[in-house]
Amino acid sequence: MEAGARQFDPRTPEERSERETEFARIVAFTDGVFAIAITLLVLTIEVPQGSKDLLADLRHQLPDLIAYALSFAVIGRFWLLHHRFFAHLERFDSRLMTLNLTYLGLIVLVPFTSELLGDYGDDVEAPVIYAVVLAAAALVNWSMVRYAIRGRLVNPESRVAVAGSGELTGLAIPGIFLISIPLAFISPYLAEISWALLFLVRSTLARRRS
Amino acid sequence: MEAGARQFDPRTPEERSERETEFARIVAFTDGVFAIAITLLVLTIEVPQGSKDLLADLRHQLPDLIAYALSFAVIGRFWLLHHRFFAHLERFDSRLMTLNLTYLGLIVLVPFTSELLGDYGDDVEAPVIYAVVLAAAALVNWSMVRYAIRGRLVNPESRVAVAGSGELTGLAIPGIFLISIPLAFISPYLAEISWALLFLVRSTLARRRS
Amino acid sequence: MEAGARQFDPRTPEERSERETEFARIVAFTDGVFAIAITLLVLTIEVPQGSKDLLADLRHQLPDLIAYALSFAVIGRFWLLHHRFFAHLERFDSRLMTLNLTYLGLIVLVPFTSELLGDYGDDVEAPVIYAVVLAAAALVNWSMVRYAIRGRLVNPESRVAVAGSGELTGLAIPGIFLISIPLAFISPYLAEISWALLFLVRSTLARRRS
Amino acid sequence: MEAGARQFDPRTPEERSERETEFARIVAFTDGVFAIAITLLVLTIEVPQGSKDLLADLRHQLPDLIAYALSFAVIGRFWLLHHRFFAHLERFDSRLMTLNLTYLGLIVLVPFTSELLGDYGDDVEAPVIYAVVLAAAALVNWSMVRYAIRGRLVNPESRVAVAGSGELTGLAIPGIFLISIPLAFISPYLAEISWALLFLVRSTLARRRS
Repeated sequence: MEAGARQFDPRTPEERSERETEFARIVAFTDGVFAIAITLLVLTIEVPQGSKDLLADLRHQLPDLIAYALSFAVIGRFWLLHHRFFAHLERFDSRLMTLNLTYLGLIVLVPFTSELLGDYGDDVEAPVIYAVVLAAAALVNWSMVRYAIRGRLVNPESRVAVAGSGELTGLAIPGIFLISIPLAFISPYLAEISWALLFLVRSTLARRRS
Repeated sequence: MEAGARQFDPRTPEERSERETEFARIVAFTDGVFAIAITLLVLTIEVPQGSKDLLADLRHQLPDLIAYALSFAVIGRFWLLHHRFFAHLERFDSRLMTLNLTYLGLIVLVPFTSELLGDYGDDVEAPVIYAVVLAAAALVNWSMVRYAIRGRLVNPESRVAVAGSGELTGLAIPGIFLISIPLAFISPYLAEISWALLFLVRSTLARRRS
Repeated sequence: MEAGARQFDPRTPEERSERETEFARIVAFTDGVFAIAITLLVLTIEVPQGSKDLLADLRHQLPDLIAYALSFAVIGRFWLLHHRFFAHLERFDSRLMTLNLTYLGLIVLVPFTSELLGDYGDDVEAPVIYAVVLAAAALVNWSMVRYAIRGRLVNPESRVAVAGSGELTGLAIPGIFLISIPLAFISPYLAEISWALLFLVRSTLARRRS
Repeated sequence: MEAGARQFDPRTPEERSERETEFARIVAFTDGVFAIAITLLVLTIEVPQGSKDLLADLRHQLPDLIAYALSFAVIGRFWLLHHRFFAHLERFDSRLMTLNLTYLGLIVLVPFTSELLGDYGDDVEAPVIYAVVLAAAALVNWSMVRYAIRGRLVNPESRVAVAGSGELTGLAIPGIFLISIPLAFISPYLAEISWALLFLVRSTLARRRS
C-alpha cells in the first residue's frame, strides 16, 4: 500500500531528473484536472428550454456568459502560475503532492461557484462563496510555493525567480479575493469589479521586472 | 507569483528545445481542452424522457445529431490546424499563451452554441451566435499565427509553410463564418449550408499545393 | 491555414520517428477522447430525485448499471485494439487522421447510445441504434487498418501482426454488431446477449495464436 | 484484431523499456480517467434553481459538499497508490491491462456513488453502495499488485517496496470499506466516520517505515 512511502518521504525528496516519468504523471494529472475544470465551465451556460422568444431568453443568460469569461480567465491565470512554479521544481515529496491535491480540490469547485455567480450574482452569497474558494486556492498555492522554497525542492538559482510567489507579493492574489469578501456586503458588483485587479497585478509586476 | 515572468517576457521568448517540458505542458493542456470540448458535444444530444413513441421522439433529435456531426467536424478541423501550426512553433512567450487561452475560451463555447443550434436551428439567433463564436475563434487563431511569424516564434524555413495561415488566405475560415451571419437573416439553413465551404476550402488548397 | 498540408499529403506520409512530438499529440488527443467518453458513461446512471424508497428506485436503475458495464467494456476493448494498432504505425498522413477523427466521432456517441439502452432496453430502437453506431465505428476502424497496411504506414515486419485487423478476421467485430441488428427485431435481449460474443472472439483468437 | 496479441500474452510480457511509448499510453489513459472522474465530482454539487433564500438552500447542499470533499480525497488517495505502484512496474501484459480497466470501471462509478451519498446520506443504502464500490476497487487493485509481483512484472529490488500492497497490509484499505458495510446498518454516520481510517492507516504505515 505504501509502496513508494520511502521515496515520498519529505526528508528524502525525489529528484526530478531521476524520476522524470513520475514527475510527468503528476504534471499531466494536474494539467488534466485544470483542462477539465476549465472546459466544464461551458456546462454552466444554460440553453433555454422550449423558448418562445430566444433573443430575450438569451439576454437573461448574459450573467452566465460573463461568469464564464471571468472564471475561464481566472482558472487560466491560476494554471499559468502553477505551470511557471512547476517549471522551477526540481524535487517533490508526499507533502507537496497532498498540497497539490488540496489545491486542485479547490480549483475543481470553480465550475460550481461560477454557476452560482451566473445565477445569483445579485445576491451577496454568490460572490462571497466565489471569493472564499479562490482565496483558499490562492493561499494553498502560496503555502505550496513557500514549502517548496524552504524544503529546497527548487534549485538555488531558481529561488529568486520563485520567491515572489512564496513571500509578501505572493499574497497579492489571495489578498484580492479576501478583500473582495467585505466589499460584497456593500455591493455584489463591487466585489466582482475588484477581481479585475487580479489581471492588473500581473501587468504591474511584469512591467516592474522587465 | 510572477516566478517565470522573465522567461515569458515577449522580448526574450522561450526556446522550445530548452524548455521542452514546459512547451509539452502547453500543448498537452491545449489538446486536453480540445479533447474534452469535442467529447462534451455528446451531452448536447438529449435522451428522450419517459417516451411512449421512441422512434418519433428520436426523429425530433435529428437536428441535435446533425449539429453534433457538424460541431465535431468543426472542432476536429480547428484542432488539426492548431496542431499543424504548433508543430512549426520554435519559441513561445506570454502573449502567445494569452492568445492561446483566449482561443481556447472560444472553442470551449462550441458545445453550448452547438446545443443552441440543435434546439433552435430554425431561429435566426442560433446560427448567428454559432457563426459569431467560430468567426471570433478563427480570427484569434489568425492573429496568433500572424504574431508568431512577426515575433519570429517560428523558424525561417517554416515561415513559408505557416504563412498561409497568417496572411490573406488565412482569413478564409473566419471569412466563411462572417459571411454566413447576414445569410442567416435570409434563411438559417442558408447559413448552415455555407459552413460546408469550410471543408471545401481545405481540399481546394490541398489540391493546388500538391 | 494549410500550414502542414505538404507533410500530411498521403503521398509523402510523415515518418513517426522524425515527427515524434506530432505523433504523440495525435495519440494523446485520441487517448484523451477515449478516456473522457468512457468516464462520461457515469453520467448515464441517474441518481433518483427525492426518492421515498431508495432501494426500490435504485433497483429501477439496474438496466442503467448493466448498460454502463457493457459500454465501459466495449469502449475499453475498442481502445485496446486502437492502442495495439497505433503501436505498429510508423507513418501517418492526413487521410488516416480524418479516418481517426471519424472513428472518434462514433466512439463519442457511445455515452448517448448507452443511456438510450439503459432507459429503453425493452424497445427495439435502443439496441438497434447501439449496434449501428458500434458497427460503424468497427467498420471505420477496419478501413483505417486496411488503409495503413496498403499505404505502407506500418512496417513490413508488423504487417503480419496487424493483418488480422485489416482482413476477413478483422470483420468479426463489425459483423457481430451487424448481425445483432436483425436479432433485435426478434428480441431486444437476444441482440444484447449476442454482443457478449465480442469478448469470446478475443479469447478464441488469443488461444489459437499462443 | 488481435494485432498485438502476442506481445500482450501473459507468458511473454512486454518490457517497459522496449515499449516505452505504449506504456506511456496506458499510464496517460489511466491518469486521464482518474483526472476526469475526480473533476466530474463537481457536477454532484447542485446549484439551487430559482432560489428565494439562497443561504438556506445552500445550507441544504452541505452534505453534497462533504461528499465532494470525501470523494475527492478518496479518488486522490487511490490515484497516489496507483501512481506509486505503476512507478515500480517494469513489464505489462494483457491480463494486467484487463485488471486495470476493471479497476478504472469502479473508480469511474465514484461520482455516481458520491452524489447518492450527498443526497441520501441518512439512508443505509447510500453508504453501503459507496463502500461496496470502493471495497471492490481496492480489492481489484490488491489483486493487480499481487499479480504483478507473482508474474514478475516488477523488478526484484522493487518487490519489497511493492509487497505491502499485495500482501496482508494491502488488505487494509478494502478491509476498511468492507467493515463499514455492517456499520452502516447500525448508523450511516458510523460508516462514514470509519472511512476516515483510510487516511490514518497511511500516516501510521509511513511513520513505521521512516
